[in-house]
Amino acid sequence: MTALASDRALRGADSITDRLDAAIAATTFERPTLVLDLDIVSRNFQALQRGLGDASIHYAVKANPAPQVIERLAMLGCHFDAASRGEIELCLSMGARPEHVSFGNTIKRATDIAFAHRAGITMFAADAEEELEKIAEHAPGAQVYLRLIVEPTGADWPLTRKFGCAPARAEGLLAYARDLGLDAIGLSFHVGSQTRHARMWSDTLNQVAATWHAVLAAGFDLRLLNIGGGFPAFHGDDVDPLEAYSRDVMDLVRARFGDAVQIMAEPGRGMVADAGAIAAEVLLVSRKSDDDLHRWVYLDVGRFSGLAETEGEAIRYQFETARDGDESGPCILAGPSCDSVDVLYEKRPVSLPVSLRAGDRVVIRNCGAYTSSYSSVGFNGFPPLDVMVI
Amino acid sequence: MTALASDRALRGADSITDRLDAAIAATTFERPTLVLDLDIVSRNFQALQRGLGDASIHYAVKANPAPQVIERLAMLGCHFDAASRGEIELCLSMGARPEHVSFGNTIKRATDIAFAHRAGITMFAADAEEELEKIAEHAPGAQVYLRLIVEPTGADWPLTRKFGCAPARAEGLLAYARDLGLDAIGLSFHVGSQTRHARMWSDTLNQVAATWHAVLAAGFDLRLLNIGGGFPAFHGDDVDPLEAYSRDVMDLVRARFGDAVQIMAEPGRGMVADAGAIAAEVLLVSRKSDDDLHRWVYLDVGRFSGLAETEGEAIRYQFETARDGDESGPCILAGPSCDSVDVLYEKRPVSLPVSLRAGDRVVIRNCGAYTSSYSSVGFNGFPPLDVMVI
Repeated sequence: MTALASDRALRGADSITDRLDAAIAATTFERPTLVLDLDIVSRNFQALQRGLGDASIHYAVKANPAPQVIERLAMLGCHFDAASRGEIELCLSMGARPEHVSFGNTIKRATDIAFAHRAGITMFAADAEEELEKIAEHAPGAQVYLRLIVEPTGADWPLTRKFGCAPARAEGLLAYARDLGLDAIGLSFHVGSQTRHARMWSDTLNQVAATWHAVLAAGFDLRLLNIGGGFPAFHGDDVDPLEAYSRDVMDLVRARFGDAVQIMAEPGRGMVADAGAIAAEVLLVSRKSDDDLHRWVYLDVGRFSGLAETEGEAIRYQFETARDGDESGPCILAGPSCDSVDVLYEKRPVSLPVSLRAGDRVVIRNCGAYTSSYSSVGFNGFPPLDVMVI
Repeated sequence: MTALASDRALRGADSITDRLDAAIAATTFERPTLVLDLDIVSRNFQALQRGLGDASIHYAVKANPAPQVIERLAMLGCHFDAASRGEIELCLSMGARPEHVSFGNTIKRATDIAFAHRAGITMFAADAEEELEKIAEHAPGAQVYLRLIVEPTGADWPLTRKFGCAPARAEGLLAYARDLGLDAIGLSFHVGSQTRHARMWSDTLNQVAATWHAVLAAGFDLRLLNIGGGFPAFHGDDVDPLEAYSRDVMDLVRARFGDAVQIMAEPGRGMVADAGAIAAEVLLVSRKSDDDLHRWVYLDVGRFSGLAETEGEAIRYQFETARDGDESGPCILAGPSCDSVDVLYEKRPVSLPVSLRAGDRVVIRNCGAYTSSYSSVGFNGFPPLDVMVI
């Protein structure tokens, strides 16, 4: 067994990822490239369908807006969560029907709301009076769901308070939406990015259920619960398999909200992360001082060319090299730009072969989500992360 | 005096920035746009020339690679510090001569070194054995300067240890370069981004001078000191005017390194920051709870569409609105994306008019550096920061 194969076995890869590995092995890349396997996207969608049952699945386009991903998912009957006019146009151009695209950003330009309304989009997110006013003016009568703030859970990347209103404001905002002639159909929340186990949803669901039942009791006709994203990818720490995870989440949801409520989910990372790997290259290996225990390893991909989620060392990617059987030692990993914040892992160094050197290929696993779309237009003159779809 | 004019007076703007203000006032922007005034770039270059005397000025292209900026600076006789093959190609295509372009990234792809060598680039940065080996192989006989790590100073954004070698390694690396047939001509360092006063250079210069004189004493023929960047922009805290700042820095340099040494500087921010302002728009103003003291203000530009340097709230931009005379109050400022880390200022809120609302224009000052180039290719479906050059 080669070092790469042994590592694959460790992370539980199966035959479907062999296609991705084979494509990478067969290709000479001129620059860092995200290789994306549509069959893995299909498999993930089907696992989510089985797990989530009758919930509607709106893929969070921002996770990876590659047109081929949108097209494949539209073909499979997936719905979409769009953050902007640009994402709505993308979905519609790739075959999605407008009634299957929700405009899920709570911060929308008025002219983009008007565009969406003209394009046939019927469902909008909101969390504030002024947003409801904009929707009522530019998409009169539209369906809206209200985003709630929930208290942080154990997610790897808990969210800030940027989105949502305090639960105490929900009733007032729903009443305001009704007064504005909007159809206030439900509530939404986000459990936090990369919530690794279904059981970690319980506290959040309890918070939302308390608001939900209070609002129902106040006479509001809620029909939709949007449970957002949070579906995790494998990044070294144990995660539940997607289907079982989704089923367990739905069990927790149904126990609190009953069977009559329409459930909507917005997986992004869970849909595409493990469908992609980045083929990168080592540019330099060095030591800063003769007595340094760790080396610095510089890759041709960094925080400004695709690996933005290493900010604060939040998401820990897995690295594979052809030398993985050799003796290894701790490395600080950094990107290629002349920017001192373009360091990937320093507080918790990464163990890599001591034989590693400039020119070696590095494969970075589970990079299908939040990489190519975060890439800069060309910081330091490096082109954006290339994408190759298989 | 209008609120905008009064604010301009406060920050000491003069007639040359009126042209920028007039251009913004006369334009309807469909999306966030960086408006860049080439006359201010020229003025800054000339101030740097006067202050830096006979030093050669290599503009750090990464700060703003707008082709018109490169073209204007090449016309004025400025030299360039390029971080990549892409930036070298840009400079050469805009009229720079190859002997005036240094390849200043210490992390270079071997094929890019070969490209640069073929294109006539003669000067390369390095900080490690493997980098010297790559240069010797692909640009035989080239001039190299060695980047040193210096200890952090009082810069607003001190650098990490990503670049440079420990001073104790300098002699060994210079000897290695010589053995490889390279022309080891000098040393470089970086004092830290946004070093607001010339006097803050003293400690760093002392550190570098100690290494410099030790290496000279060991028989190495150093002829070049590259003092890097660090030239500051105005972001609310007091900074010295550019010409006086540069002159004071040169006095500190000459006192330690003598008059015979060739000095090279790499201003980026100092050259272009105040030449640009972003015309942005308020998308939403809200409160999360009825008893919140602060509001949330969401702009159509954020961390992923140009304002990357607000990471950690490091760089504090100045905001102007047409309502600046009205009563004001604390705001958390955030970008438009569905990303919870896309928050600009939260720990230290920004004071903005209480009358501010969706649709209002916001002008963000001194945004000419490190904005458009950091912008993502289209995160959340938002196009990259637009650039309008006047």
